[in-house]
Amino acid sequence: MRIPFTKMHGLGNSYIYINLFNVTLKEEELSDLAKELSNPNTGIGSDGMILITPSQSSDVGMRIFNKDGSEGKTCGNGLRCVAKYVFENEMVKTSIFQIETKAGNVTAEVHGTTDYVESVTVDMGVPHLERQSIPMQGPASDSVISEPFDVNGDTLQLTAVSMGNPHAVMFVDDINQAPLYELGPVMTKDSRFSEGVNVEFVEIINKTEMHFRVWERGSGVTQACGTGACAATVAAILNEYAERDQLITVHLAGGDLFIKWSSDGHVWMTGAAVTTVEGYYNKD
Amino acid sequence: MRIPFTKMHGLGNSYIYINLFNVTLKEEELSDLAKELSNPNTGIGSDGMILITPSQSSDVGMRIFNKDGSEGKTCGNGLRCVAKYVFENEMVKTSIFQIETKAGNVTAEVHGTTDYVESVTVDMGVPHLERQSIPMQGPASDSVISEPFDVNGDTLQLTAVSMGNPHAVMFVDDINQAPLYELGPVMTKDSRFSEGVNVEFVEIINKTEMHFRVWERGSGVTQACGTGACAATVAAILNEYAERDQLITVHLAGGDLFIKWSSDGHVWMTGAAVTTVEGYYNKD
Repeated sequence: MRIPFTKMHGLGNSYIYINLFNVTLKEEELSDLAKELSNPNTGIGSDGMILITPSQSSDVGMRIFNKDGSEGKTCGNGLRCVAKYVFENEMVKTSIFQIETKAGNVTAEVHGTTDYVESVTVDMGVPHLERQSIPMQGPASDSVISEPFDVNGDTLQLTAVSMGNPHAVMFVDDINQAPLYELGPVMTKDSRFSEGVNVEFVEIINKTEMHFRVWERGSGVTQACGTGACAATVAAILNEYAERDQLITVHLAGGDLFIKWSSDGHVWMTGAAVTTVEGYYNKD
Repeated sequence: MRIPFTKMHGLGNSYIYINLFNVTLKEEELSDLAKELSNPNTGIGSDGMILITPSQSSDVGMRIFNKDGSEGKTCGNGLRCVAKYVFENEMVKTSIFQIETKAGNVTAEVHGTTDYVESVTVDMGVPHLERQSIPMQGPASDSVISEPFDVNGDTLQLTAVSMGNPHAVMFVDDINQAPLYELGPVMTKDSRFSEGVNVEFVEIINKTEMHFRVWERGSGVTQACGTGACAATVAAILNEYAERDQLITVHLAGGDLFIKWSSDGHVWMTGAAVTTVEGYYNKD
C-alpha cells in the first residue's frame, strides 16, 4: 500500500500528515500506523501522525496520534500545520476557518497565499486560573499568582495557569541560569499538582518580548511548547510584566511564537508552519 | 529548492538516498545537508545520507555521509539499498554489477526483477586475521582464534577478525545471557585494541544458523552490523562451528543476514533492502 503524506513541523515539532479526503485508512490500524511512520529507522521519523479529516461541525477536522500510538486531543503546533495544509491545498476558501479537534472546534487564520502560507494564528482558548482547574492543592477558587512555593530547600514565586493542561510559570533574571534540569523533573511530579505540571521559566526582556524554557510533563526538556508559551504570556500579564491585547514575542529554544491574550479572554498564538517532505510511504 | 529523494533501510539502518544522475548538489553543502536530512524534527529522519553517483571505475558510485555530517567510506546495509535502487531504476542492465565506494569497488548481485528487488548480495571482501591487521597487541603475524582474554576478572575465549574494521567475537551458550551491556563498553575501549573494537557475542544454533548481538565501536548496542555478522561467520568457521562455502543465517536484533565465506577468500553478505519513502524534500 502506497500512502501519500506530507511531513510538516512547527518549531521542530513534526508530524506525518495524511489527508483522509484522498486516502482511506482502517480505524483499527491507525495506532500501529502512527508508531510505524514515526520510527526513523524503519518508517519516516516524526513525533506522530496527524489525520486531516472531513468534519460535520467545522470546515475540516484533525486527529492526532502520538509516536507511541496513543491518540491525543489537540496540538498547537499541529493545528498551525493543518491550517497551512488545508489553505494551500484549497480545501477551505477563506483565510479564517474552523478546525475540529478532540478538544473542540478551533479558529485558525492563515497569513499568506494559497501558494505559500508563512505563518498561522490559532485560538488557544481561554486560560483558567482557579486552583481547582489547574489542578493544584489549596483553596479551590483562588488563583495562584506569584505565590511562594517551597521546593528543594528554596522558595520560588509561582504562577499557575491552565491552558487545558497545567503550567507552573516562574520568572528569572537570566534564562540561561534557570534551574530547568534541577527543578523540572522534581516539580513536574510534585504532589501539590495532582495531575503533574509543565514547569516553565521565563526571562522578561521588555513588555513585548520574553525568553522561555520548558520541562514538559511526560517529555522533559523540549524545544517548543505552544500551550506553555501561552501560559507564560498569561502569567506575565497577571504579574504586570506585559499587557492584554499586545502581541508578545516568546523566544523558545526551537524558535519564536507570538502570543496575544485578548480582552475577550482568548489567547491567540501565531507561529510558523513548515512543509519539509511531500511523498509516498510504502506500507507493507 | 526541492530535492527528490528515496528513503531506504537495511535491517533498520536507514539513509536518505539522492540520485546525482538527476540532482545537482554543491560539494560544500553536502555535510550540512546530511545533518539536515537526518534530523527527524526539522528534516526527514535517518542515520545519514547516501549519494548515488556516476563512476569512472564501476557501474555506479556511492558516497555515504553520517548523521553528524562526516563522510564515511562504505556501509554494507547502504550498499544493498544502492544496488536495489540502481537496478529497479534500470541504471544498470545486469543483475551483477560494480559499485564504487571510498573503500574500493564492490560487486553486488540483486535478487528479483526491475519491478521489485527483494534482497541483495554484496562482496564484503577478504577478512584479515593477523594481529597487526586487527589491530591487536601481541605477535604481529599471529591470528587470534579462541585466545584467552582477561577482562573484568573473567577469562573469555576471543576470536579477532578484521573486515576492514576490527571485531572481537565470543561464543556463548545463550545469546540472551550474553554480557553485552557489561563487557561491550569495557572491551570496545580496551587498550589491547589500539583502534578500539566491535564487541560481538554469538550463539551457535547449528552449522548454518546463529544468533548475534553487537556493541559497535562508537555507537554502543545497535540493531544490525553487517561487517559484524561477517566477522561472526568467519570466527565460527575458524572455530569449526560452521563451514566454508555454506550459507549461514545470522539472526541479528534487526533481522536476518545470510553470510557465506567462500573458498576464494571473499565473504558474501545477502540481506533485505527496503524502500520506505519516495518524495521531495523542501530545502530552504
